[in-house]
Amino acid sequence: MSKSNPISPDYRIAVVGSGAVGCYYGGRLAQHGRDVHFLMRSDFDQVKAHGLQILSPEGNAQITEVHCHRTTEDIGPCDLVIIALKSTSNGSLLDLIPPLLKPDTMLLTLQNGLGNEEFLAEHFGEHRVLGGLCFVCINRTAPGVIQHIAQGQISMGEFGGSPQARTQAVAAEFRQCGVPCEVAESLAEARWRKLVWNIPFNGLSIVGGCIDTETILRSAPLEALVLALMKEIIETAGKLGHQLPVGLAEDMIARTKTMARYKTSSLIDFVEGREVEVEPIWGEPLRRATAQGLAMPKLEVLYQLISHAVEARTP
Amino acid sequence: MSKSNPISPDYRIAVVGSGAVGCYYGGRLAQHGRDVHFLMRSDFDQVKAHGLQILSPEGNAQITEVHCHRTTEDIGPCDLVIIALKSTSNGSLLDLIPPLLKPDTMLLTLQNGLGNEEFLAEHFGEHRVLGGLCFVCINRTAPGVIQHIAQGQISMGEFGGSPQARTQAVAAEFRQCGVPCEVAESLAEARWRKLVWNIPFNGLSIVGGCIDTETILRSAPLEALVLALMKEIIETAGKLGHQLPVGLAEDMIARTKTMARYKTSSLIDFVEGREVEVEPIWGEPLRRATAQGLAMPKLEVLYQLISHAVEARTP
Repeated sequence: MSKSNPISPDYRIAVVGSGAVGCYYGGRLAQHGRDVHFLMRSDFDQVKAHGLQILSPEGNAQITEVHCHRTTEDIGPCDLVIIALKSTSNGSLLDLIPPLLKPDTMLLTLQNGLGNEEFLAEHFGEHRVLGGLCFVCINRTAPGVIQHIAQGQISMGEFGGSPQARTQAVAAEFRQCGVPCEVAESLAEARWRKLVWNIPFNGLSIVGGCIDTETILRSAPLEALVLALMKEIIETAGKLGHQLPVGLAEDMIARTKTMARYKTSSLIDFVEGREVEVEPIWGEPLRRATAQGLAMPKLEVLYQLISHAVEARTP
Repeated sequence: MSKSNPISPDYRIAVVGSGAVGCYYGGRLAQHGRDVHFLMRSDFDQVKAHGLQILSPEGNAQITEVHCHRTTEDIGPCDLVIIALKSTSNGSLLDLIPPLLKPDTMLLTLQNGLGNEEFLAEHFGEHRVLGGLCFVCINRTAPGVIQHIAQGQISMGEFGGSPQARTQAVAAEFRQCGVPCEVAESLAEARWRKLVWNIPFNGLSIVGGCIDTETILRSAPLEALVLALMKEIIETAGKLGHQLPVGLAEDMIARTKTMARYKTSSLIDFVEGREVEVEPIWGEPLRRATAQGLAMPKLEVLYQLISHAVEARTP
């Protein structure tokens, strides 16, 4: 196994955070024969006994004999760690990650928003950290059951800078397992690009009265607000050095209109009483802009309304 | 009766729009012996039979033998017409007002927000139009029953410009009937000053999840948002030539904290399925700013969220 091909079939892959994202992408890798080890809590018994099920318009998949573990000590050292934990639980990674580490273990965070790569780099070393943006509509509908609704591609990059051979290799591995995956020249730019969608849609799905994407876009005032928020984010990203394409906002709205009605992950977290990723999606982008003297007044209003909604939610 | 004292006991006063505001202020005038004629619809039978009741921490009042009318033709010409109709029904004034008019009949709108004086001036002549800002917490709790919660003062001015003798006389008349009333040098400035309170509190009482003023101010993110909205409005008003006092936002928030918990009129309209005054309170100020090339991004977000909430409300 040469260093220039850092992913090979005998590579050990860990998935930390076995919600919809972890189970879907880990499940795709396992489905194609990769040696994937899931850290599981609530779904352990179900998945141990019956495996993972991916229900998808592209064809259902039943993944049997899934490697489930209750601790990362049980998993042991891996070559690639996929982190799909809710970012509000990042504190727990301080204990969860060390048992998985070898000197060159890669940490690939598929978490939402801003700040997760920084957290991993600070605690485990910048050289380990990759980030992936998941453009996917999935919901975990029952223990071990993932409903894949649409899309699924990942945009992947290196936290430390430009893509390396290992970045290309990890992306190729995902592609070989049926996951469209591209390598981003700039991970930071890719993160901002994803926020252009997540900030308005995840936000308005909550403060618009617990509504799906179709309902948001059927409302003229909310569609106008989506566009205004997107433009504010694109303008700010540009001033922060991440030039996003002209027309991105309009394209994203048009593409979202072609999607089936979709409940954002934040909405599902909100209505199910789980933690909502308020800071990585809304708080951290606002703080990064503010730190550079840039105002994002529309995001600021949305952030305060979401913060209130989450705090006021009856548990 | 001299022209320099335009209000005298034999003056006829009409109240058009007999909700909480009309019944409260009209009721105070009637309570003190003024010749007040109410246009009543839903409350006609109740008020005709039992009069008006004002429940107030300053002492309850029972006003008997109230002049109720089903049409303004029945009322006939008056000297002063108090307009307290929901501004979303302004169109009906085109029919309601003419039977009340003499050449010097004054039209005093106590309606919320921006645009009502302009509407009256356009259709009935600028010279007739006065505006009053009501700083009052009142709710109509049953037909003919007004619960006065706090405050009650009016700030009154001339639409056409500076106060006149008649402005002072009308204000004095209100004061003699137990209503604190001051004359505003600039009605437009007074309107913007009131919007500093109404835009955030009426708005967040709806989009914050149907909550009262105390709940708004107990939420750190919503209190921050109230302050941020107030500052945007004050800054915009200043650029439009209406210089509001430094510290107004902080003062208003501090004063609101001393109030009993209060459901804004917009919230009550919203939850009871009645029309919400979206345009005069949120839409028109935004359009006036936009027309002068001024951005109010925070108001814009709030306006779009309220527009959506009102449109999406299940009747």
